[in-house]
Amino acid sequence: MPPDDDYRGGSRDADPAGAPHPLLIEPIVRRALEEDLGRAGDLTTDLLIPPGRTAHAAIVARERGVISGLVAAEIAFRLIDPGVHIQRHLRDGEPVSAGAAIASIEGPARGILTAERVALNFLSHLSGVATSTDALVARIAGTGARIICTRKTIPGLRLLQKYAVRCGGGLNHRFGLDDAILVKDNHIAAAGGLGPVMSRLKHHLGPMVKVEVEVDTLDQLQEALALGFDAVLLDNMSVAVMRQAVEITRRRAKLEASGGIALERVRAIAETGVDFISSGALTHSVRSLDLGMDFL
Amino acid sequence: MPPDDDYRGGSRDADPAGAPHPLLIEPIVRRALEEDLGRAGDLTTDLLIPPGRTAHAAIVARERGVISGLVAAEIAFRLIDPGVHIQRHLRDGEPVSAGAAIASIEGPARGILTAERVALNFLSHLSGVATSTDALVARIAGTGARIICTRKTIPGLRLLQKYAVRCGGGLNHRFGLDDAILVKDNHIAAAGGLGPVMSRLKHHLGPMVKVEVEVDTLDQLQEALALGFDAVLLDNMSVAVMRQAVEITRRRAKLEASGGIALERVRAIAETGVDFISSGALTHSVRSLDLGMDFL
Amino acid sequence: MPPDDDYRGGSRDADPAGAPHPLLIEPIVRRALEEDLGRAGDLTTDLLIPPGRTAHAAIVARERGVISGLVAAEIAFRLIDPGVHIQRHLRDGEPVSAGAAIASIEGPARGILTAERVALNFLSHLSGVATSTDALVARIAGTGARIICTRKTIPGLRLLQKYAVRCGGGLNHRFGLDDAILVKDNHIAAAGGLGPVMSRLKHHLGPMVKVEVEVDTLDQLQEALALGFDAVLLDNMSVAVMRQAVEITRRRAKLEASGGIALERVRAIAETGVDFISSGALTHSVRSLDLGMDFL
Amino acid sequence: MPPDDDYRGGSRDADPAGAPHPLLIEPIVRRALEEDLGRAGDLTTDLLIPPGRTAHAAIVARERGVISGLVAAEIAFRLIDPGVHIQRHLRDGEPVSAGAAIASIEGPARGILTAERVALNFLSHLSGVATSTDALVARIAGTGARIICTRKTIPGLRLLQKYAVRCGGGLNHRFGLDDAILVKDNHIAAAGGLGPVMSRLKHHLGPMVKVEVEVDTLDQLQEALALGFDAVLLDNMSVAVMRQAVEITRRRAKLEASGGIALERVRAIAETGVDFISSGALTHSVRSLDLGMDFL
Amino acid sequence: MPPDDDYRGGSRDADPAGAPHPLLIEPIVRRALEEDLGRAGDLTTDLLIPPGRTAHAAIVARERGVISGLVAAEIAFRLIDPGVHIQRHLRDGEPVSAGAAIASIEGPARGILTAERVALNFLSHLSGVATSTDALVARIAGTGARIICTRKTIPGLRLLQKYAVRCGGGLNHRFGLDDAILVKDNHIAAAGGLGPVMSRLKHHLGPMVKVEVEVDTLDQLQEALALGFDAVLLDNMSVAVMRQAVEITRRRAKLEASGGIALERVRAIAETGVDFISSGALTHSVRSLDLGMDFL
Amino acid sequence: MPPDDDYRGGSRDADPAGAPHPLLIEPIVRRALEEDLGRAGDLTTDLLIPPGRTAHAAIVARERGVISGLVAAEIAFRLIDPGVHIQRHLRDGEPVSAGAAIASIEGPARGILTAERVALNFLSHLSGVATSTDALVARIAGTGARIICTRKTIPGLRLLQKYAVRCGGGLNHRFGLDDAILVKDNHIAAAGGLGPVMSRLKHHLGPMVKVEVEVDTLDQLQEALALGFDAVLLDNMSVAVMRQAVEITRRRAKLEASGGIALERVRAIAETGVDFISSGALTHSVRSLDLGMDFL
Repeated sequence: MPPDDDYRGGSRDADPAGAPHPLLIEPIVRRALEEDLGRAGDLTTDLLIPPGRTAHAAIVARERGVISGLVAAEIAFRLIDPGVHIQRHLRDGEPVSAGAAIASIEGPARGILTAERVALNFLSHLSGVATSTDALVARIAGTGARIICTRKTIPGLRLLQKYAVRCGGGLNHRFGLDDAILVKDNHIAAAGGLGPVMSRLKHHLGPMVKVEVEVDTLDQLQEALALGFDAVLLDNMSVAVMRQAVEITRRRAKLEASGGIALERVRAIAETGVDFISSGALTHSVRSLDLGMDFL
Repeated sequence: MPPDDDYRGGSRDADPAGAPHPLLIEPIVRRALEEDLGRAGDLTTDLLIPPGRTAHAAIVARERGVISGLVAAEIAFRLIDPGVHIQRHLRDGEPVSAGAAIASIEGPARGILTAERVALNFLSHLSGVATSTDALVARIAGTGARIICTRKTIPGLRLLQKYAVRCGGGLNHRFGLDDAILVKDNHIAAAGGLGPVMSRLKHHLGPMVKVEVEVDTLDQLQEALALGFDAVLLDNMSVAVMRQAVEITRRRAKLEASGGIALERVRAIAETGVDFISSGALTHSVRSLDLGMDFL
Repeated sequence: MPPDDDYRGGSRDADPAGAPHPLLIEPIVRRALEEDLGRAGDLTTDLLIPPGRTAHAAIVARERGVISGLVAAEIAFRLIDPGVHIQRHLRDGEPVSAGAAIASIEGPARGILTAERVALNFLSHLSGVATSTDALVARIAGTGARIICTRKTIPGLRLLQKYAVRCGGGLNHRFGLDDAILVKDNHIAAAGGLGPVMSRLKHHLGPMVKVEVEVDTLDQLQEALALGFDAVLLDNMSVAVMRQAVEITRRRAKLEASGGIALERVRAIAETGVDFISSGALTHSVRSLDLGMDFL
Repeated sequence: MPPDDDYRGGSRDADPAGAPHPLLIEPIVRRALEEDLGRAGDLTTDLLIPPGRTAHAAIVARERGVISGLVAAEIAFRLIDPGVHIQRHLRDGEPVSAGAAIASIEGPARGILTAERVALNFLSHLSGVATSTDALVARIAGTGARIICTRKTIPGLRLLQKYAVRCGGGLNHRFGLDDAILVKDNHIAAAGGLGPVMSRLKHHLGPMVKVEVEVDTLDQLQEALALGFDAVLLDNMSVAVMRQAVEITRRRAKLEASGGIALERVRAIAETGVDFISSGALTHSVRSLDLGMDFL
Repeated sequence: MPPDDDYRGGSRDADPAGAPHPLLIEPIVRRALEEDLGRAGDLTTDLLIPPGRTAHAAIVARERGVISGLVAAEIAFRLIDPGVHIQRHLRDGEPVSAGAAIASIEGPARGILTAERVALNFLSHLSGVATSTDALVARIAGTGARIICTRKTIPGLRLLQKYAVRCGGGLNHRFGLDDAILVKDNHIAAAGGLGPVMSRLKHHLGPMVKVEVEVDTLDQLQEALALGFDAVLLDNMSVAVMRQAVEITRRRAKLEASGGIALERVRAIAETGVDFISSGALTHSVRSLDLGMDFL
Repeated sequence: MPPDDDYRGGSRDADPAGAPHPLLIEPIVRRALEEDLGRAGDLTTDLLIPPGRTAHAAIVARERGVISGLVAAEIAFRLIDPGVHIQRHLRDGEPVSAGAAIASIEGPARGILTAERVALNFLSHLSGVATSTDALVARIAGTGARIICTRKTIPGLRLLQKYAVRCGGGLNHRFGLDDAILVKDNHIAAAGGLGPVMSRLKHHLGPMVKVEVEVDTLDQLQEALALGFDAVLLDNMSVAVMRQAVEITRRRAKLEASGGIALERVRAIAETGVDFISSGALTHSVRSLDLGMDFL
């Protein structure tokens, strides 16, 4: 089951730059199913639904949102019963209106009932992430800024949450501790200042690693720019100070605004001219999208 | 590292009836660390913090709440460096006020920095669950009702989320599909009515499995009571109808109120006399508790 | 490969209430195959049987019994070679007579020979469990009592052994330490008596957990009944005392007879009116059913 | 925890040539514990035994036998709580009399109660294997023959069962399909006779693999001896024919008697002069040794 | 996907006595893919190659060699995308000339590009092993000696490297510490001499384990022969001494020449009459075969 | 066991920027041990070395080189027996002369003998990688260029090989497909040219991902520079053309020389002024460093 988005699709929503490979998702879905099946499996269904019985159901949105996680839901059904057939009416990254069907499910009733909860748990959580991301993205439309996520993710779901952020129109900051450098005050203190930090990084880092530094003041920003950092994280700065930061920087580095990114304030931040606005809440405080399965 | 609560502690909060055994938590924490370390580990820390350096830090609450997940945070630090020492100032299930220290951390600076984010991700998510549970529990204080959770959990975290619900003063409904029976309308239709359902269950179930049935109407409730179900789920009923259900039941079965359990409405529901009030949002839509690590 | 029993099949034997889901069995079968293949695989077959060669074989009972474990045997063949085709002549839970064919196997000779031993190891062990269970069940036919198993299982095979007990017409007691409460004397002593035990359980247990207590005397039984336990385990009581226990209880709780359940004595126990008779030997001391594979 | 037998111990029983390395046993014990703990762990103990409580217990034999599996029992306790201390009174391979204590256990009561059943399940099963092996070994004392086991083992426990056979004074045949060659009639037929079999083996096998062939008749034995097989399995022969086989062979190959090895017949077989007598029942039809844990 | 060699193929090269079973190889390939995909998968391909795009490519040898590992390469492509179709032009164990195509690949472009590097990493490494083995084998053609490998393998690849040695015309020594005995000087010293070693082995070893001893001198060889070892490893002896060893031995045991086996010296060693010549470098110092993927 | 290098150590060799975290290495070492132990463990040692026996040994270099992999060797000994004590005389990244001791090992003789081969397999392979890297690094001393590795690694060992390259004074290119973008001709063709490639990357990539493009000609280089790629891979260019590339580039992007990097030619390449020189052979064609264990 290869990733199914088509990047020529046109719309942003339909083009989340690739669902994670099934090889990476399947172990996560398998663990979720094992968590639900326990040792004895679905007692209720196994006792009350005859094996030959088939069913026809639809996954339906109970509220408006942006869809993400269909690939995980599909894997859940397939692992429980390869005979369950799913027809997508929407694709990850597309908006759904309240009451609309996201996908049709057809096949053995036992398999559909047994996989239902796990499939919906993935889909409603990830669609929740995509929906909040989309809300932030919509607010800053027309500015040059982009919404990005952080490492403040739900343990075990980082891969999927980062994908959901992309489905909502956001981009990803680093995936973990190993794919980019983010220098914070503890690191600077231990290394003896920003200069020694940079010279040490230059000596030891391979060519494909980007380097960002977190700053609290415009003085620190100046120093970081002089040393050639790829990106600078502006930590909890006011909109006014951020505007100054943008002027000082003159595109010599990418600027990331971080800290207290609420829906009300995000456009003002974006209009300062920063390149990226990062939000932890996108992945750590997720309201799940209300979805359900209706049997037909 | 044995579960550390002492059930003679007195207060409800300090007595969440047992953290899950480390044997069950450790694989979950290990996967979260692997997710963050990736292939190359903590590039920034490994390059900038000298190995012998020690640090002293505190995990601090930025807002009021109920703590849950210290055991997961401790395992995260221990897996990264057994030399990191954690002293708890609070126990899972206890309330914390804004600004208060939850635990002190001392040991190798590298280990503390590398494990920090994963430890906080667990602690702030689970404390978020405990805090919302506690809010519901507080609202119904003095009624005989209890707050319970559902299977609408974050994939991979069910075990820990259910524990967090207990930390917040709630109880757990079933852990999965295999430890109790919950009969819904699809099952009833397939089996040919509630009578055949019950006779089939009686024939096939061992002595240690409880049986609950979901009903929409008082007629269905009557039928369920006559057949001897252990518990009945009242699905999306009004407070008035629930009150009737309680009267009809006369304690012949446990009654569970389900559907649309908002903070504003929960006390009215509890006062109908139902035994349990279940909320999916407790585990599917979690606002994480704002926690941070301060270096001293 | 969905569970294949059809609960409308009619006979008890053909209706063991669901084989465990393949998702749960496959890892067990995979480990058994890895245990047999070692590092280098089936040296003898790989060297002596040409790849294109096909074979036709039958799994045959060398003695009378009740079949269980065909699903595990099928997974063994399928994992070794998906081209091996198995046709069942009987279903799990059905009786087989000496000399009768249980299933026909057709396909690549290499795959059949390599998987043969592991497939038979599962099938003969589980059929052994089902056969002994069936013998006990037959002895108590017509009484209201049911045969149940315990946690005295072969490490790693609990899931499958419990299924085999169902195939033999028995029922399952709890699957593990987490799906029901069984209070023994150590617990009572530590908690300070049966009263404190019950009040603690009432305070901390969710609605879907059943509670049983083990008693040695009729006095303890009286106390347990007064406190409202769901079930009482009568430990090593004489038939006469069990009869009194049944009278005292008046169906206020389920009664389980336990200890020294031999074939000779089981009917006398059942006739006391107890609800369940549990036997550890069903799963801890299993004589495997004599099965073989005949090449045609 | 290194293997603990001392080969200078003197007695056969105390010298089972090495318990399997803990690295190999621990995953098996861990899975057995996970199987028993399920998702929520030991509900009864966690709710009713206070954390600080300690206990003192003894593992006691309820009947005479030979001990095997202490290493697995120890790992079970250690994985549940490293604070549980076990003092062995006997070693694997030593005889125990009814009523004697095998080991003393001291430490946290919760840990002891939670691990008890899994520890006993390993110990009573493996001691059952050792005890039956010892019974066969005792019957053939003074003959040159040795008792060996087969690949008819309980899935997942082969490693430990083979060790238990050694504890009972037996030896092991091959561990799986990859560490020796056993040529059966299907292989001979496919290869076109015993001559082609041997020339193919000579061409393809490395120097460290032994080769055995199964024969039904003395003619086949003659042919096998002429071709230089290391060992010959005499399949289901009468004692008289086996005696002839020994004479014909004149120690040119090892002879293994197989098929229907009952306690009554084993000495007669041994006295024919065969080198090895193999029994599948030693590992496939195990009566567990009756052991229990007594709290002091 | 069963092993695909046909032992009737005729040529040595086409008959490497069985590729390891896919059940054993797949976890190794899966880990290699996970190592390359990391958390986010193939960023470049997912962003730049449209999902529907197909490609046609050939795996081509850039230099002369012997092929090994096609089965691993195939599993890599299949795990990434089951829609990728591979047509082998050669089989494992067959020679390839510079510029020749080994296999054609056709299917989804994304899958082919994502799996390419891992597939080639396996194929070029294992073909490197087979090619060096073949070079040694060719040098000793016509002597009775055989080339064998050792336990000096690349961690995690022993199974596949040993198969590659067979593809190159060599044979395997033991696969690990558990499938044969190799007695070295430390063992002899600890046991108190070669006599005690042998008596201990005779007492404790099952019938299917071969026993080899390492000797430095002809005196030790004499002693080993007298005690009946199956094989003797001649450690770092000169060609002249090896010739004497062969004379002394008179085929009473297999002789293995070991130590400093260079291409220049191997024929002289083989002509001494030893049975086996073992080389660690075959597996520990592998020059990979230069292969590439050409898109058509 | 935290990473043990001290970055203040001074010398390049002693400062390889961090051994991978034990959490990441331990599973790799564990699999290598399981591969060697098989099912039955170290038969020879278990039978011939008494349990209480201790030994003292040294790991000694038989030739000159640079050490890498001590951390893996230590984990191997520790997993087999935590009582084995290792004292390092050198650190990863330091040079060793022929005959010098790298580490002393003391403890239970069984543990030392059983872990020896796996420990040496890691250490000699990784030291081989470090030694060849060091040879290239030494050749280009004084130029501004750095040696880097590729994704042409041994399956399963990428993490450790990349560390070994750092021990030898090299740097790492990307760790896998997910931590940086490398655009090759297939990607360019599919996207419709370098312009569309860049605009697509700009739209979809987060801020922390670097982007490199492979070029064959100076025209492509010009185009790549104009579009703002972070790095350009010069594929198989002559030294003369590379010199032109450096001039054209004027440090607007990092330049990586790739293809046919032999020891003889590397200095000439470095002197062209390229920033990085990448070599696949460093990790795909490794001559292991000759190390041994001497018992004292």
